[in-house]
Amino acid sequence: MIAGMSTPPIRALIFDVFGTLVDWHGSIAREVGALLGNRVPDPAPFAVDWRAQYQPAMEAVRSGVLPFCKLDLLHRHNLDRVLADRGLHDVDEATRVQLNLAWHRLDAWPDVPPGLMRLRERFRIAPCSNGNISLMVDLARRNGLCWDAILGAELARDYKPQPVVYRSSCAAFDCDPAEVLMVAAHSSDLAAAAACGLRTAHIARPDEHGTGIGERAADVPVDWQARDLLDLAQQLGC
Amino acid sequence: MIAGMSTPPIRALIFDVFGTLVDWHGSIAREVGALLGNRVPDPAPFAVDWRAQYQPAMEAVRSGVLPFCKLDLLHRHNLDRVLADRGLHDVDEATRVQLNLAWHRLDAWPDVPPGLMRLRERFRIAPCSNGNISLMVDLARRNGLCWDAILGAELARDYKPQPVVYRSSCAAFDCDPAEVLMVAAHSSDLAAAAACGLRTAHIARPDEHGTGIGERAADVPVDWQARDLLDLAQQLGC
Repeated sequence: MIAGMSTPPIRALIFDVFGTLVDWHGSIAREVGALLGNRVPDPAPFAVDWRAQYQPAMEAVRSGVLPFCKLDLLHRHNLDRVLADRGLHDVDEATRVQLNLAWHRLDAWPDVPPGLMRLRERFRIAPCSNGNISLMVDLARRNGLCWDAILGAELARDYKPQPVVYRSSCAAFDCDPAEVLMVAAHSSDLAAAAACGLRTAHIARPDEHGTGIGERAADVPVDWQARDLLDLAQQLGC
Repeated sequence: MIAGMSTPPIRALIFDVFGTLVDWHGSIAREVGALLGNRVPDPAPFAVDWRAQYQPAMEAVRSGVLPFCKLDLLHRHNLDRVLADRGLHDVDEATRVQLNLAWHRLDAWPDVPPGLMRLRERFRIAPCSNGNISLMVDLARRNGLCWDAILGAELARDYKPQPVVYRSSCAAFDCDPAEVLMVAAHSSDLAAAAACGLRTAHIARPDEHGTGIGERAADVPVDWQARDLLDLAQQLGC
């Protein structure tokens, strides 16, 4: 930092959710196993394949090919494709609906409930996720999280990393971007937030995509690098 | 109800806030007294006059004359007008900023924190207010309320009683309007919600605009009439 310049104090923290706060890989594999049983003998690759459709589906919205729709709808479209790719054409509608709601039943990493509770004492906190509001509500209830508000894609009506998603989250909290800390386990998310003027914290989630497959540290410049949310809370003096 | 017809179970409750959950009249009078002192010897009429500008200001947005802006901005415009009407032209900018934030420091009616806690056990709950997200966040923190999400005007980018505000709140919770109960102390708000297909509960707030000046009961058909939120919780079996 250049001598004489100062940054404003942080007033709010906004969080990526899938991978950063919740273990989508383990949770989706569990749900696929429970709902499809021996029709999908190895549910972990199914989870990875389903998640792999995530960015291309959102890109259709970001590029303007599709109007904005909730992530639940994109997840469903992607599910139908992954089932078809495996020849599982006869999975019935009720099962597909239940499977799609698996994204509402993801488990938080163990540090997340106590970490958010500590961070909430000092800062306004909200998810800034591509997940829709009802999905965030269900994850919060399942994992005992208490948000100040649900911000992110549905409020902005576009998907990260579009700048409007970060900017509208800051604006909803009446904050300048420099007063807001974006917390994520993904360097690309943090780079996009930093380009909008937000401050950034990377959380290591080395097992996000399965054991040993996840970002151990940011590969872009960040303001904080933390092992988990409890470590971040300590670094921020909470 | 016609025999054989059935209504779906209620899954979510959305709430009007100013007057229904918080005592704007008493709280604004207190803040005006504290910040303007003997320049406004009787702060209660000041509160009433400020609030009287509320509907006309929103009407400019609803009618399309003004683009959507946060209620904080309308409140500020209205404050400047009320100060000017009283010849208080020399109230400085810092005081005006503090005064405008009085709307973020309103006190809940005593039944509201325990009532919402009970209702939250059975239902998703959110404010559906014309107040902006940051205002709702500050009221929730001040009064110990735990919302599932902040819905209402800022999400819809229009003001009640425009149908989009009620409908977008239901949609955010993945609910049909008939699965959502709108809770308010104002018959006009409930009539607008009912016209969108929501179910309705009226809360008596006989002192909203000062002692004895408030709706004791709905003057339109409603599904529930309650003395307060604890009474509503009991009627709903919580």
